[in-house]
Amino acid sequence: MDFLFEHRSIRKYKSTPIDNNLLNKILEAGTRASNTGNMQLYSVVVTKDIENRKKLAPFHFNQSMVTEAPVLLTICADVNRFNRWCGLKNADAGYDNLIWLVNAIVDAMLFAQNICVAAETQGLGICYLGTTLYNANEFIDALNLPKGVVPITAISMGYPDQNPPLTDRLPREAIVHDETYREESDDEILAYFKEKEELESSKQFVAENDKENLAQVFTDVRYKKADNLFFSDKLRKTLREQGFDF
Amino acid sequence: MDFLFEHRSIRKYKSTPIDNNLLNKILEAGTRASNTGNMQLYSVVVTKDIENRKKLAPFHFNQSMVTEAPVLLTICADVNRFNRWCGLKNADAGYDNLIWLVNAIVDAMLFAQNICVAAETQGLGICYLGTTLYNANEFIDALNLPKGVVPITAISMGYPDQNPPLTDRLPREAIVHDETYREESDDEILAYFKEKEELESSKQFVAENDKENLAQVFTDVRYKKADNLFFSDKLRKTLREQGFDF
Repeated sequence: MDFLFEHRSIRKYKSTPIDNNLLNKILEAGTRASNTGNMQLYSVVVTKDIENRKKLAPFHFNQSMVTEAPVLLTICADVNRFNRWCGLKNADAGYDNLIWLVNAIVDAMLFAQNICVAAETQGLGICYLGTTLYNANEFIDALNLPKGVVPITAISMGYPDQNPPLTDRLPREAIVHDETYREESDDEILAYFKEKEELESSKQFVAENDKENLAQVFTDVRYKKADNLFFSDKLRKTLREQGFDF
Repeated sequence: MDFLFEHRSIRKYKSTPIDNNLLNKILEAGTRASNTGNMQLYSVVVTKDIENRKKLAPFHFNQSMVTEAPVLLTICADVNRFNRWCGLKNADAGYDNLIWLVNAIVDAMLFAQNICVAAETQGLGICYLGTTLYNANEFIDALNLPKGVVPITAISMGYPDQNPPLTDRLPREAIVHDETYREESDDEILAYFKEKEELESSKQFVAENDKENLAQVFTDVRYKKADNLFFSDKLRKTLREQGFDF
């Protein structure tokens, strides 16, 4: 399992394309992941054409990976395929509600992570694009996603042209609870984030943005409450337009 | 990546315990997965004590893996840890809304799938328990999960005492769309599900339940609309009680 400890998000790629057979095998490895009731409530849109990637780039806030990596995968929660099958079989599908939206998101993410693991074993690099949720509606239009299909994340993939250092992680004790969840003391919480706060890059963020500390960089600069509410409203509307009642 | 093609869900386990150091390394491999803004919005509750597993079993509808596998992992979306840190740092956190609920679910599932991949490379077997979402409220009580924390899935883990055949998957063409999403013809949709319908086990389900076809087994027996709506209402209430406004 040591290769899992080597994962870093890759943001600079060689122009070398990914062989079609290899990409197909990687996507098939994705489908071997567990999923709810073996209903496979997910799809992936593979965008290779540079003109198409350029069209998607602004909705990913022009992150360079979208146009520089040879492959962009948009990973979707998808109840459309299963619904259509049920419709053709005189079966009354009821998968347009909250619990099945979450099931489909879960399935889509296990599929996505298997794809990333498979790709990395082949010397490829990946980066998840969380921007997908921010502009789900724009991706729906650009990729012609029908009702029942919602893009949840995207993955840029290609041969790495950088080897960045591993990023920090919280200590295991912060994540793992034995038998039941133990609410930590304030001092313990502060200790968990100490390493992150003391990184040079963190100190630089704080200074550049004229903030008191790193937490304020998150709340006042990177992921502001007003933006979170704006994009939550937008996502809610999109999910409902795609047919989910939740 | 061939090992990913060997995954099968394991439902019968040897009583052999999992070495603590090995389990810790597997969980740490989980934390190496990508996550949103490196905020790591997830937690895991590790339940080994048999009495505790017996208490959880009914909420998993008494699936045997809960008490037979030596380890049960309850994987949670968790904004509590990050919120608390922000609170201690005079930073105004705004992560209790729809987009961050989805972000936390995404993070938790990439973490979960890395754990499963890591475990399988060590000869361990796993099974996801989708029942977690059905009774999220009961797990919250039993595991003392505070506001901001919601169990999304659970994983039973141990040394396999069975080697079941691989389960079927839809053909790659059903899952993969080139450049944009292509709505298939009715005939194509029917063709995708043909292999699944022709499995002996599928034919048996149809006969046993006196249904016309496999789709009706899903909609009328396994995942009925009325149940889906009941559990969606329950989950909605639980998510709101845990502090998410969506």
